Amino acid sequence: MASTNTTPSFTFVLFGATGDLSLRKVLPALYRAHRSDQLCDDGYIVAVARKSMDSADYHAWAREQVRPHLDMERIDEDDWERFLNRITYVALDLTRQDDFTQLRDALDGKPAARVFYLATGPALFEPVCKGLAAAGLHDGGRIVLEKPLGHDLRSSREINDTVGEIFSEQQIYRIDHYLGKEAVQNLQALRFGNALFEPLWRREWIENIQITIAEELGVEGRGDFYDQTGALRDMVQNHLLQLLAIVAMEPPHSMAADPVRDEKLRVLRSLKPIAIDEVNQLVVRGQYQSGLSGGASVPAYAREPGVAAESRTETFVALKAEINNWRWAGVPFFLRTGKRLAERVAEIVINFRPVPYALMGEASLRAGANRLVIRLQPNESMRLYCLAKQPGEGMQLQSVHLDLAFDQFFKAGSMDAYERLLLDVIHGRLALFVRRDEQEQAWRWVEPIMTGWADSARMPKLYSAGTWGPAASSALLAQHGTCWLEEEN
Amino acid sequence: MASTNTTPSFTFVLFGATGDLSLRKVLPALYRAHRSDQLCDDGYIVAVARKSMDSADYHAWAREQVRPHLDMERIDEDDWERFLNRITYVALDLTRQDDFTQLRDALDGKPAARVFYLATGPALFEPVCKGLAAAGLHDGGRIVLEKPLGHDLRSSREINDTVGEIFSEQQIYRIDHYLGKEAVQNLQALRFGNALFEPLWRREWIENIQITIAEELGVEGRGDFYDQTGALRDMVQNHLLQLLAIVAMEPPHSMAADPVRDEKLRVLRSLKPIAIDEVNQLVVRGQYQSGLSGGASVPAYAREPGVAAESRTETFVALKAEINNWRWAGVPFFLRTGKRLAERVAEIVINFRPVPYALMGEASLRAGANRLVIRLQPNESMRLYCLAKQPGEGMQLQSVHLDLAFDQFFKAGSMDAYERLLLDVIHGRLALFVRRDEQEQAWRWVEPIMTGWADSARMPKLYSAGTWGPAASSALLAQHGTCWLEEEN
Repeated sequence: MASTNTTPSFTFVLFGATGDLSLRKVLPALYRAHRSDQLCDDGYIVAVARKSMDSADYHAWAREQVRPHLDMERIDEDDWERFLNRITYVALDLTRQDDFTQLRDALDGKPAARVFYLATGPALFEPVCKGLAAAGLHDGGRIVLEKPLGHDLRSSREINDTVGEIFSEQQIYRIDHYLGKEAVQNLQALRFGNALFEPLWRREWIENIQITIAEELGVEGRGDFYDQTGALRDMVQNHLLQLLAIVAMEPPHSMAADPVRDEKLRVLRSLKPIAIDEVNQLVVRGQYQSGLSGGASVPAYAREPGVAAESRTETFVALKAEINNWRWAGVPFFLRTGKRLAERVAEIVINFRPVPYALMGEASLRAGANRLVIRLQPNESMRLYCLAKQPGEGMQLQSVHLDLAFDQFFKAGSMDAYERLLLDVIHGRLALFVRRDEQEQAWRWVEPIMTGWADSARMPKLYSAGTWGPAASSALLAQHGTCWLEEEN
Repeated sequence: MASTNTTPSFTFVLFGATGDLSLRKVLPALYRAHRSDQLCDDGYIVAVARKSMDSADYHAWAREQVRPHLDMERIDEDDWERFLNRITYVALDLTRQDDFTQLRDALDGKPAARVFYLATGPALFEPVCKGLAAAGLHDGGRIVLEKPLGHDLRSSREINDTVGEIFSEQQIYRIDHYLGKEAVQNLQALRFGNALFEPLWRREWIENIQITIAEELGVEGRGDFYDQTGALRDMVQNHLLQLLAIVAMEPPHSMAADPVRDEKLRVLRSLKPIAIDEVNQLVVRGQYQSGLSGGASVPAYAREPGVAAESRTETFVALKAEINNWRWAGVPFFLRTGKRLAERVAEIVINFRPVPYALMGEASLRAGANRLVIRLQPNESMRLYCLAKQPGEGMQLQSVHLDLAFDQFFKAGSMDAYERLLLDVIHGRLALFVRRDEQEQAWRWVEPIMTGWADSARMPKLYSAGTWGPAASSALLAQHGTCWLEEEN
C-alpha cells in the first residue's frame, strides 16, 4: 500500500551509531519507517562509531539496546532481521581523516544518494566534514545536524562555516524535531488549507498567543551538559522560536522549502529586539528547587549531579515577544518552557479578543471565551473554545469546545517526528529543516537576554519542582491582563 | 433549583382546548414547565372549548389524550394531579359575545396577568378578540396567535387589524416555533456572544448559505387544509424567512425584543424582490408523486384524501434569495422545504469561500471544504468542517470536523420549543415572537411567487416521495457551481 511513498534508493551513514541519540531516536525511527514499508529495498544503513566490532556485533547490540526503545506491541522477527540486514557497521576514529577511506570502501557499490547523519557532539562536526571531503564522499550527499548547534551566534556561525565549507546550504538538514510533529504541520494545514482561519489570524482579532513547552522531568543525569546550556539555549532559541515563526508567518507563495523558510525568517527578523536593560522586565528566568514531581520528592536543580552548587543556569524561561509587522504589531507572544513543571505539555494557545461589547452578557467579555488550543504533546489535538447558550430559559452563555483529536479521527496513527524528518532527508525534502539564516537570526534575537543575565548579579527566580514556575511568570502576563491557560483549568 | 426562574403568577386561557394543537403541543409544554418547577404555584390554566363538560371531565380527557404526547419515561401521579388542579374548564361558544361573561366569572379571583392562547382556526380570532373586549378582559392581557396568520398579505393584514383593534402590538405574541428552538437561539449566541464568527459572517468569506427544513411525512390526513396552503405559505413565508433573517441580521444594539426584531425586519426589507417573470428561474415548485418513504410505499400527493386530483399545490419549494445590503450582496441564500423528502432534517449550512489559491493542493479549493452546519432537527448540533493534514508523509489534506453536540455537552436537556415560547409569553418576553411588520414584510416578499405561479399554466415539478425533491432543485444550485449539502454525504 505504502509503496508509492517508498523512498528512492539510499545509503544512510549514521555517525555516533552507538550513542544515546542513535539508539533512542534515530534507529527506532528508521526501523518504524522500514516496518511500514516506507524504505526502498535498495536502502542501506552504515553505522559508524569508534568501537571496534563487526556488523554482527552491532546487530546484537542493536537488538539489546534499540528494541526496548521501539515501544511497539510486537516485533516480527523476520522483519527485524530484514532491517538488520540493511545495516553494516564500520569502526572509525572520526578524528583521523585517513580512516575515512575505510568508510569509502564500505560505501562502495551502495547507492550514491548518501545521508550523513551526525549523531555526535558538535566537536566532531568539523573532523567528520573534513574526513568526508578528503575521501571524496561529500559530493551530492546530505548532512544532518542535531542541536546544540552552537551556544551563541558566534559559535553557531563557526559550525555553519565549517560545515558550509564542504556542504552547500541545500545539502544541510538542521533538525528541529518539533517541526516534524504532526500537530505543527497541521497548524500550517489549518492556516493555509482553510479559508476560515486566515482572516482571523491577525492583530484585529487576536489578543495574545501563548506557546508552552513544559517538561515534567528534570535534567535526568545530564546535569553536566544542561548546566552549560540552560533552557534559553536548549528550548527557546530553537523550538519555541520555530513554533512562533510558524504561527506568525505570512502565507508563503508555495509550500516548497525555501518559500516557507523565507517567511519564517521574515518573522524572526521582525521580532522586536529585546534591549539588555529590558531583559528583567520582559524575560523571567527560573530555576527549580526541590519539590514534588509525579508524587515523588525530587531534589533541587542545584543539587543534581553535575550541576554547580551555585549554578545560575535557568531551568525555566518565560518571556514576552512582539512582532513588529503589519499583522502582529502590539500582540504579545508569550513563550514559556521549563523542566520540573506541573505536567508534560506542549501547546499553542491563540486567545482571541473578546466581543466589542457585552451584547449577550458579561461572559462574552471574559478572557479566553474564544480560544484555539493546538496541543502538540502529550497527545496531538485541536480544540476551539467558544460560548454557547445554556439550554433552557433565557440567554445564559457557557463555555463549550469543538474538538478535533487527531488520533481519534484518523485511522492511520500519526507519524513520529523523527521518522518523518528522517524520511524527508532521504527523500531530499528540506521544508521541515532549519536554514542557516533562520538559525542565526534566532541566536541574534536571544543574545541580549544571555548578555543581560550574564551582566546581572541576580539569581534566577526559584520555583518548587512540580509547579508552573516562578510567580514572576504569572506576573508577566498579569501586566497584560491575561494569564497562562493552565491557571484557568 | 429552578425556583429563581419561576414565572410570576398568571392565568393562561387556552381557547380551542380540546383541539389538536392543544393536546399535542400546548398542554404537554405547560406540563413540562410545571414539572420542572418553572410555573409559579399561583398559576392557573383556564381551558376553553365549545363542548359541554365540567373540569373533572376535562381532566379525564387530558389524562387520556394529552399524556400519550408527553413522551416521558415516567410521570409522577401526584405531580400530574397538581398540574390538573391548575386547570379549570369553561364551555363557551366563542362566536357568542355574551358568553364571554362566563369566562369573566371563571377568571374572577385569578391572577390578572392573563395570557389568551388562540389554539383555534383564524376564523375565530375576530370573535374571540371582540368577546374578550366586550367582557373587559383584554386590558393588559397577552394574546398568542398561531399560524396560519393569513394566506397572503391582505388576509394577514386583516387579521392583524382585527386583533390590533383590541390588543396593542406589545400585547401580541405571534408564534413561529422555530424561533423557540435551542439551536436557533444558539446561532445568535454564537454570532453575538463570540468574537470569532462575526468577522467571517459576511460576503467576503461566505460563498452561499443553505437553509433546509425537510419533512419525511406527507400531509398526514390534513390534505384538505394543505391543499389550500402549500409549502410556500406553510413553511417559506414564516419559518424559512425567519431563519434567514436570524442568520443574516446585523448585531442589534441589545437583545431586547424590539432591537432584535428591528434587525430581522431590516433583513426582510433588504431581500431582493423577485419579479413575477423571474419566478420560474429563481423558485422551484415541486409536488410529490408516489414513492418509498421509510421503507413503505406511499401515495402521490394528488391521491391523498382531501386533495384535488388535479391539484397544483406545491409540497416542495426551493428558491434562491439575495439580500441587497453591504454585508450580503451577491451571496445566494438557498432555501428549501418539502414533504415526503428523503429524511427529516432542518439545518442551516454556511458554506465559506475556498482559499484564494491552492497553496496546499487542490482539496482546499473544493466547495464545502470550510463549512458550518447548524442542525435544528432531528437533533441539535453544530459542526465545523475544515481541512487537516492526513497523518504521515507529505501534506495531503482531508476533511475533518469539529463537533458540538448540544445534548451531549449540556447536562440539562434542551427545552422544547413550545415550552420555551409559552414560558416567554407568561414572563412577558417578546423577543422570540414575530412582529406585525416582519410578518407582513415576509408576505410582501413571497407574494410575487404566488402570483407567478397562479398566472402560470405550469404544473409543479413532480418528484418521487422519499427523494430530495425535483431535479430542478439541484439545477438551481448547480447554476451557482454548488449543490445541496446532502448530495455530498
